[in-house]
Amino acid sequence: MDEVAIGLIGFGTIGSGLIHILNENKTVIEARTGFRIKLKRIADLDIESDRGVIFDKSILTNDAYKVLNDPDISIVVELIGGYEPARTFILEAIRNGKSVVTANKALLAQHGPEIFENAANNCVDVAFEAAVAGGIPILRSLREGLIANRFDKILAILNGTCNFILSEMTENPGSGFSQALLKAQQLGYAEADPTLDIEGIDSAHKLALVLALTHGIRVPIESIHVEGITKIDAFDLVMAREFSYKIKLLAIIIRHGNRVEARLHPTMIPERHPLSKVDGVFNGIFLRGDLVGDQLFYGRGAGREPTASAVMGDIIELIRSGRSGKAGRVPPLGYPGPLKSSDCILDMNEVTTNYYIRIQANDRPGVLSRIAGIMANHNISIHSVVQKGRDFSGEGAVAVVFITHSAKEADLQKATLEIGNLDVVNCPPAIIRIEDEDLD
Amino acid sequence: MDEVAIGLIGFGTIGSGLIHILNENKTVIEARTGFRIKLKRIADLDIESDRGVIFDKSILTNDAYKVLNDPDISIVVELIGGYEPARTFILEAIRNGKSVVTANKALLAQHGPEIFENAANNCVDVAFEAAVAGGIPILRSLREGLIANRFDKILAILNGTCNFILSEMTENPGSGFSQALLKAQQLGYAEADPTLDIEGIDSAHKLALVLALTHGIRVPIESIHVEGITKIDAFDLVMAREFSYKIKLLAIIIRHGNRVEARLHPTMIPERHPLSKVDGVFNGIFLRGDLVGDQLFYGRGAGREPTASAVMGDIIELIRSGRSGKAGRVPPLGYPGPLKSSDCILDMNEVTTNYYIRIQANDRPGVLSRIAGIMANHNISIHSVVQKGRDFSGEGAVAVVFITHSAKEADLQKATLEIGNLDVVNCPPAIIRIEDEDLD
Repeated sequence: MDEVAIGLIGFGTIGSGLIHILNENKTVIEARTGFRIKLKRIADLDIESDRGVIFDKSILTNDAYKVLNDPDISIVVELIGGYEPARTFILEAIRNGKSVVTANKALLAQHGPEIFENAANNCVDVAFEAAVAGGIPILRSLREGLIANRFDKILAILNGTCNFILSEMTENPGSGFSQALLKAQQLGYAEADPTLDIEGIDSAHKLALVLALTHGIRVPIESIHVEGITKIDAFDLVMAREFSYKIKLLAIIIRHGNRVEARLHPTMIPERHPLSKVDGVFNGIFLRGDLVGDQLFYGRGAGREPTASAVMGDIIELIRSGRSGKAGRVPPLGYPGPLKSSDCILDMNEVTTNYYIRIQANDRPGVLSRIAGIMANHNISIHSVVQKGRDFSGEGAVAVVFITHSAKEADLQKATLEIGNLDVVNCPPAIIRIEDEDLD
Repeated sequence: MDEVAIGLIGFGTIGSGLIHILNENKTVIEARTGFRIKLKRIADLDIESDRGVIFDKSILTNDAYKVLNDPDISIVVELIGGYEPARTFILEAIRNGKSVVTANKALLAQHGPEIFENAANNCVDVAFEAAVAGGIPILRSLREGLIANRFDKILAILNGTCNFILSEMTENPGSGFSQALLKAQQLGYAEADPTLDIEGIDSAHKLALVLALTHGIRVPIESIHVEGITKIDAFDLVMAREFSYKIKLLAIIIRHGNRVEARLHPTMIPERHPLSKVDGVFNGIFLRGDLVGDQLFYGRGAGREPTASAVMGDIIELIRSGRSGKAGRVPPLGYPGPLKSSDCILDMNEVTTNYYIRIQANDRPGVLSRIAGIMANHNISIHSVVQKGRDFSGEGAVAVVFITHSAKEADLQKATLEIGNLDVVNCPPAIIRIEDEDLD
């Protein structure tokens, strides 16, 4: 049986998962591929800690160039994460004629063009299925199986940490954001510094990759509207339930002819929507193709084995490509030519959608009419309104919740700014956008 | 831009869908692939009927060999269906050095080995994503993205016709099987002769392909336990709802070490199971990988555009493979070596599962105790029992419904045979197997 040598840089959780797979599923992988994968060398700054997996300790090195310069190694797996030294190592691997597998969405969202261009020039491949939705083979599906489709709509839950926190807050309406985050941290679903997750940055990196693959648009995440989940109040989750909605942090990509709406924020979706059943640390991608109609992909978006499964799928993909011919069979970002840039993205102000607006106001006569008047002045038509009594947040304050008909983001922003400035309103209105095709 | 010529044999619904895609999504396909696909010739016995799509009529021929012998054509798309002449045409295409795309599950389940062996010998590929679950890229996911996983459990709804009928019977409890079938036929979801669908044959062909891809086992469908949906009574759907179950026609593959349980029959699943939300003509594949954990793939499993989307994905896959190297990058049935045969399949008599048993008996004292006694004699332990009064089917008859703890199929069969022979029992007991992990 042929043997293919690979090297690993970054020996953390996913790296140890990879060794677990090479140990435990060796037989099945060899039976399916017809070749043997040999992990020849592992580089990590920490070559002491016990990772809980069995392997030949002599392959450990703290010098990444022992991997990058090894002529036997044809594939380098980069699992360090972050921008540097990951970028440098990947470019060096490419220069040395090695294909690369990585799960590094931040790096690819930021430095993708440089990396992919270098790979093409050096006739090697860069694979990154593990960068989006962990064990779910979604990138491959978008780039290959579904390639003939225009993607009219994509709604995706791409961050298990946020989804766990929101599920937790939904199931235990008493549990506020901080308490749910703490639980996520205790269970190992959130990092000590959870900023990248809860502020939506991690999801935005993934959104940027999906946007490139589905629409050929390559933008830095700064040109996408990104909101995290830190402002979600337990009260909003109670209200969501009253309206038969669930709140999910959604990556949203909607096609309008040649322009595309791309945004990431907490979103209310109907309880009957397939994504509303995607709870806990699970990820889900709902897509509407002009040919295939509606599809849902559901599974674990993080964790040692699911992510390592995706890395392993990529390693095998690259070995197969290498053996059957040359690199570059499938363009890494889905399009062989130059990608379009941010002028194809619909300005957030032009986005039209439905809104949930929560306003905390003094319980005085005429307040509701003044608020409603401002909305009307800004062309915001109200679908339903619920006023909750004085028990909301202390003396004299009421919470008024509006669900709007379809409205323009610019109008909504103006209206809520004006409402927030009313003397009877205590704080800026809270806004959660709604994806509900039964509303207009 | 490079142009690749393809030929089509069989100009029915899916074939016209293919032309629709080539017309409507030409721009996006060319942008993503960098090449142009030219449908050079279409062969069909009927070259007169209007298919409702625009194309150059001069490419139509009633001689399939005009496609098979055209040296320009590198890929032949076979969409005739059935065994012959599809088999002959595919083998001829392969002999002529052309790769083949087909949606013909019956042919592949029956003659797969011959076709794939010929393809390998002639260095061409045979792709068949459209053969299972229409527009859902499930075969590619199993063979590539998820390749490192052992598949511990697969539960799949693979026939839209049956799923529509069962959904219809569930939603309208008054609607019996015949009425639901009639509605499916009126809506174009069932054929005039629906036998292949409703008897489970079509699903079994797909199950056989999935079994090969996931476990390397190749068996004729005769060695799989196959039951259709014709015996499902509206009463069973009412009872299912009482137990918070739904009834789905499931392809079931469960791994037990080196042996595999493979069966296809109507199955009760908990309402909370993700597959229970797969209604109407949709397909769904639930899988449990030892690495990725639980995943669900959901989408349209039939219809003109979804199926043609999968065919188109395969065409592009084959063109990409041809351009980047040689054929055979991925083994068509997931394993490069010879596949295992039916001795890896657990005998149906050895299968252990939970059962719903409906017995129609005379309402006389002692009946329940006699039935329960027979079950006990055969080691079948009862989880719950519901007796419904005389309104079930005329005078003196009651329906008694049992849910069992885990029991062996052989025991179950013996017990129900014995119960059916009781003088107080009017007809053979009806059995529906249950997949509920909360039962034991």
